[in-house]
Amino acid sequence: MKIQLILGSKSDMPVADKAKKILDEFDVNYDIKVASAHRTPDYLKDIVESCNADVFIGVAGLSAALPGSIAAHTTKPVIGVPVSGKLNFDAILSIVQMPPGIPVGAVGLDRGDNAALLAIEILSVKDEKLTKKLNDYRKKMKDKIIEK
Amino acid sequence: MKIQLILGSKSDMPVADKAKKILDEFDVNYDIKVASAHRTPDYLKDIVESCNADVFIGVAGLSAALPGSIAAHTTKPVIGVPVSGKLNFDAILSIVQMPPGIPVGAVGLDRGDNAALLAIEILSVKDEKLTKKLNDYRKKMKDKIIEK
Amino acid sequence: MKIQLILGSKSDMPVADKAKKILDEFDVNYDIKVASAHRTPDYLKDIVESCNADVFIGVAGLSAALPGSIAAHTTKPVIGVPVSGKLNFDAILSIVQMPPGIPVGAVGLDRGDNAALLAIEILSVKDEKLTKKLNDYRKKMKDKIIEK
Amino acid sequence: MKIQLILGSKSDMPVADKAKKILDEFDVNYDIKVASAHRTPDYLKDIVESCNADVFIGVAGLSAALPGSIAAHTTKPVIGVPVSGKLNFDAILSIVQMPPGIPVGAVGLDRGDNAALLAIEILSVKDEKLTKKLNDYRKKMKDKIIEK
Amino acid sequence: MKIQLILGSKSDMPVADKAKKILDEFDVNYDIKVASAHRTPDYLKDIVESCNADVFIGVAGLSAALPGSIAAHTTKPVIGVPVSGKLNFDAILSIVQMPPGIPVGAVGLDRGDNAALLAIEILSVKDEKLTKKLNDYRKKMKDKIIEK
Amino acid sequence: MKIQLILGSKSDMPVADKAKKILDEFDVNYDIKVASAHRTPDYLKDIVESCNADVFIGVAGLSAALPGSIAAHTTKPVIGVPVSGKLNFDAILSIVQMPPGIPVGAVGLDRGDNAALLAIEILSVKDEKLTKKLNDYRKKMKDKIIEK
Amino acid sequence: MKIQLILGSKSDMPVADKAKKILDEFDVNYDIKVASAHRTPDYLKDIVESCNADVFIGVAGLSAALPGSIAAHTTKPVIGVPVSGKLNFDAILSIVQMPPGIPVGAVGLDRGDNAALLAIEILSVKDEKLTKKLNDYRKKMKDKIIEK
Amino acid sequence: MKIQLILGSKSDMPVADKAKKILDEFDVNYDIKVASAHRTPDYLKDIVESCNADVFIGVAGLSAALPGSIAAHTTKPVIGVPVSGKLNFDAILSIVQMPPGIPVGAVGLDRGDNAALLAIEILSVKDEKLTKKLNDYRKKMKDKIIEK
Repeated sequence: MKIQLILGSKSDMPVADKAKKILDEFDVNYDIKVASAHRTPDYLKDIVESCNADVFIGVAGLSAALPGSIAAHTTKPVIGVPVSGKLNFDAILSIVQMPPGIPVGAVGLDRGDNAALLAIEILSVKDEKLTKKLNDYRKKMKDKIIEK
Repeated sequence: MKIQLILGSKSDMPVADKAKKILDEFDVNYDIKVASAHRTPDYLKDIVESCNADVFIGVAGLSAALPGSIAAHTTKPVIGVPVSGKLNFDAILSIVQMPPGIPVGAVGLDRGDNAALLAIEILSVKDEKLTKKLNDYRKKMKDKIIEK
Repeated sequence: MKIQLILGSKSDMPVADKAKKILDEFDVNYDIKVASAHRTPDYLKDIVESCNADVFIGVAGLSAALPGSIAAHTTKPVIGVPVSGKLNFDAILSIVQMPPGIPVGAVGLDRGDNAALLAIEILSVKDEKLTKKLNDYRKKMKDKIIEK
Repeated sequence: MKIQLILGSKSDMPVADKAKKILDEFDVNYDIKVASAHRTPDYLKDIVESCNADVFIGVAGLSAALPGSIAAHTTKPVIGVPVSGKLNFDAILSIVQMPPGIPVGAVGLDRGDNAALLAIEILSVKDEKLTKKLNDYRKKMKDKIIEK
Repeated sequence: MKIQLILGSKSDMPVADKAKKILDEFDVNYDIKVASAHRTPDYLKDIVESCNADVFIGVAGLSAALPGSIAAHTTKPVIGVPVSGKLNFDAILSIVQMPPGIPVGAVGLDRGDNAALLAIEILSVKDEKLTKKLNDYRKKMKDKIIEK
Repeated sequence: MKIQLILGSKSDMPVADKAKKILDEFDVNYDIKVASAHRTPDYLKDIVESCNADVFIGVAGLSAALPGSIAAHTTKPVIGVPVSGKLNFDAILSIVQMPPGIPVGAVGLDRGDNAALLAIEILSVKDEKLTKKLNDYRKKMKDKIIEK
Repeated sequence: MKIQLILGSKSDMPVADKAKKILDEFDVNYDIKVASAHRTPDYLKDIVESCNADVFIGVAGLSAALPGSIAAHTTKPVIGVPVSGKLNFDAILSIVQMPPGIPVGAVGLDRGDNAALLAIEILSVKDEKLTKKLNDYRKKMKDKIIEK
Repeated sequence: MKIQLILGSKSDMPVADKAKKILDEFDVNYDIKVASAHRTPDYLKDIVESCNADVFIGVAGLSAALPGSIAAHTTKPVIGVPVSGKLNFDAILSIVQMPPGIPVGAVGLDRGDNAALLAIEILSVKDEKLTKKLNDYRKKMKDKIIEK
C-alpha cells in the first residue's frame, strides 16, 4: 500500500512536510514528487498512471488545478490540499468545486497533516493495523487536550 | 462493506438523492439517516459508533457541523457535502476548514454524486471489483462527451 | 451565578484573556477550560452538562464548531467568539449561521471582551448589582472618549 | 419580564414572524415596534429607554445599524438578526463586527426563530419555568428528527 | 464654511491625518472630534447638531455605523471613510449599504485624502475660489505623473 | 444649479428612475444621459465638460468605471451608484476603491434614491430652500415610520 | 487563421453562442468542441495539439480548469470565460489565478462575446482587414449609444 | 512589433519588472509608461492612440480602471494585471468584469510575468520565431521541474 503526494510547486513543501510528519509517525509507505498540472501535464499523467498508489494527495495554491488533474487520470481516491497565498479563496474553490464525475476530497487550507490522516484512514479500510494506530493517535490527542 | 450517509436535515434529501443514484448504479451497500450535529448530538454519536460503516458521507448546509461531528466520533474516512443556501460560503468553509487531527474530505456544493463516487473509490482500495466498475463508469462518461 | 468559558484550542487564549480582564473587573464567577468540539466531543459534553453554568462562552477559529456544540448540549445562553486566522470568514460564518432550534449569539472577530460583557448583561437580568456595574462601566467608557 | 423586538423596516416582518411564533409558543411577554436607527434615531432611543425590556431583539438588513444602536442605549442584552438581501454579507458583518464595549449577539441570516429562543434562554437564567419549557422544546425537536 | 471630521476611535487618526493634510493645503476651515456612534451616541448627536458644519466626514472601522449615525442627525452631506482592519469588507459594506432616505457618500478604504477632496468639491459648489484651487491641485497631480 | 445623471447603459434606467422620482419631488434641475466609460469615452468626456452641472451622478454595473471616469474629467462632486448583477461586489468595489486624488462618493447597491438625496444635500450647501425641503422630507419619512 | 472554442460541458453552450454571434458577424474561421479538462483530459490534449488554431477560447464553470489545461498544451494565446453558477467566484478565480509560466487571459463572467472580440483583436495583429472590421464594429456600437 | 506597458502608478513597478524580465529574455520590443486612467485620462488616451503598439499591458490596483480605459481607446488586444493591495478583489473584479464590446484579458494578481508571456504569444500569431522561443521557454520550464 502506498500514498503518492504530488506538489504543484517546490514552494508547497512546508505544507507537504506536515503530511510527512504524520506519515512517518504512522510508518506508512509514501512518495513525494513535484509536478505541475499546468507546466508539466504529461509528466503528471505519467506519475499518476505509473506510481501504483492506493491514495493520492495533491498540494497546490492559486488556481489549484493539481488535485483535479490527478483525479482526471485515476479512479483511486484523491485528496486536495489548498495552499495559502494572497487570496486563499482561489485555491480552496478550485479544489472543492470539482464537476460531477471526478471527485476530489478537499481538506483545509495548508492542512497537509489532515490530508495525511485522511489518506491513512482510507488505507485503514483495508488494513486493520492502521485502524488501531489511528485510534491510538486520536486517544493521545484527546488526552493531551484534557490534561491541560 | 457499507457506506453510511447522514443528512443534517430532511431538506437535504435532494443532494443525497444524487448520491443514492450513484450508489445504486454501483450496487454498493449503504444506509441513509437524518441526524443533526446540533439538534441530536447523542443520536448522531450513536449512529456513527454503531452503524459499522467503512465510509461516512455527511450532508449539511448553513454552519455545516455535521461532517466534522461525524469525524469526531470515528477514524473511518468522512466525506462532507456542503448544501447550497443563501450564502453557500458558510457550508463550504464550515466543512473544509477542519482543525488539525480530525480530517474531513469536502466535495463541491451539492455534489452528492461526487461524494458517492469518492466513497466508492475508497472502498475500491479493498475491493478490486469496484475498481473495474469505476473504470467502466469513467469510460462511459468519456465516451458520452466525445460522441457529442 | 457562573460563566463557563471554553476554548477550542490553547492557542485561543489571547482572545480569552480579553474576556478574563472584563470578568475580573466585574468580579463575576467564571471558569476557563480548553475542550475541542472535534477532538474531545465527549469531554466537551461532560463539561457543558456538569459545570452548572448560567452562561457559556465558546471561543474558536477555523471551522468553529465549538459554540454550536456547546449549544447542542445545553439550553443556557451560549455566546460564540470567532478567532481570526487566514480566512476569518470561516470562523464567523460557522458561528453565526446556526440552524433553527439551536441558537448561538455571535460577537465580533476576536471580541472576547464583548463576549464577557454580553455574558454579564445576561446575568444582570437576574442580578441588579451587575446592572449598576454595567452602567458605571459604560459611563466611564463614554467619559474617556469625550474627555479626549 | 419582557422581550422587545425592534424592526428596522416594516419589510423585515417575515423574519420577526418567526420570532413571534416561538415567543407565542413559550407564552413570553413581548412587544414589536418598527424603528429605524437611521431614519428615526430619537424615536429608537425613546423606545429603548422607556420600554422596560429585559432583552432586546433588533432585526435589520443592509447596513444593519439597528442592533448596535439599540445596544448603544442600553446595557440589557441585545440580539441582532441580519435580514437577507442582495449581498447578505452587509447585514451579517454590520451586526457581528461591533466595537469593543458595546456587545451584540448575532444570530444567523433571517433567524428570527433563534433570536427568540436565545432571548428565552436569557430570561431562563432568572425564570426556571422557562428552563423546563426550553428543555421540553428541545426534546420534542430531537424526537421529531429521530422518529423520521 | 466648515468641514466637521468625526472619528469613531482615536486609533483612526492616521486616516484622518491624510484628510488634514489636504484640508490644510486648501486652507479650508475644519474641526476634528472623536465620537463613537455606539459608545457615545448622545455626544455624537450633540456634535452633529451644534457644530454648524456644511459637510461631515465620518471615519470608522469594523461595523462602521458612524457615518450613517451622523447622517441620521443632519441633512448636510456626509462622507464616510471605511478604516481597514482584519476584514475590511465590514467597514466598507457598513458605510456603503445605507437604507433609502439617509444617504452617505463612501470613499475608499483608508482614503481620508479623497474624503477631504470630496468635501472641498462640495464646498466649491458655493465657493468659486475652491474650484480654482481644485483645478490647480488636479493640474499639479497630472503634471507630476506625466513628468516622470 | 443642475444635477447631471449619466448611466453606463440603458439597462440601468430602473436605478436612475429612483433618482428621478426624488429629483422631481424636490423640483431640482437635472438631465439624464447614457454614456459608457468604455464604449464612448470621448462622448462621456464631452458631456462632463460641457454640461455645466454642479453635481454628477454616475450609475453603472459590472466593472463600473463610469463614476471614476466622470471624476477624472471634473472637480465637481461625483456620486457613484453601483448597479446589482451576478456578483454585486464588482460594481461596489470598482466605485468605492478610487485612487488618491480623484474622489467619488459611493452610495449603496441600486440606491438611485440616495444618490439623488445626496446630490440635493450638496446643492443645499448653496441653496437654503433645499435645506428646508430636505428637513421636511426627513420629517415626513420619520412620521410615516412612527405612525405605523 | 482559426479560433478554436472548447466548452467544458454542453451546458455552457449559451455562453458560447454569444461568441458564435460575434465570430459569424466578423466572418472568422472557428470550430466549437465540448471537452472536459477533468473528464476527458487526453481527448482535450488531442484537440489542442491537432486543431491547428491560432487562438483558443475555453469556456467553463465551477472549478474551471479548462482554459488552464488548454494553455498547458499550447503556446498559442488562450482566453478563458468563467461561466456563472451558484458561487461565480469559483470559476472566475480558477481561470484568473494561473501560476507563472502558463498565461490565460480571462474575460468577464459569461462574456463569450468579449472572448470572441479579444480573439479577433489577436488575429488582427496579423490581418489588417480585421482591424478595419473591429474599428467599424466599435464605431457602430458608439453611434448606437450616442443616438439614444 | 511592439508591446506597450502602462502602469497606473509608479508603485506598480515591481509587477511591471516581472514583465520586463520576460520581455528582455524574449528580446521583444516594448515601452513602459506611467499613466493613470483617473488622474491623467487625456495623457493616457494620447499614449494609447500614438504609441503604435500591437499589444497593450495595463497594470493597476484598487479600482483598476486602467486596462479597461486602454481598451476604450484601441482595438488592439489589451491584457490587464491586477495589483495586490488590502482587498485584492477590487483590482481583480475591476479588470475582469468588463462590459460587452470592450474586451480585456485579465491575468492573475501581480502576474506581470504571465502578462508578458501572453503578449508574446499574441505576437507569435504573426511571428513564427517567437513561437519557437515560446516552445523553448516552455520546455526549459518543464525540464527544470522534472529534474528536481
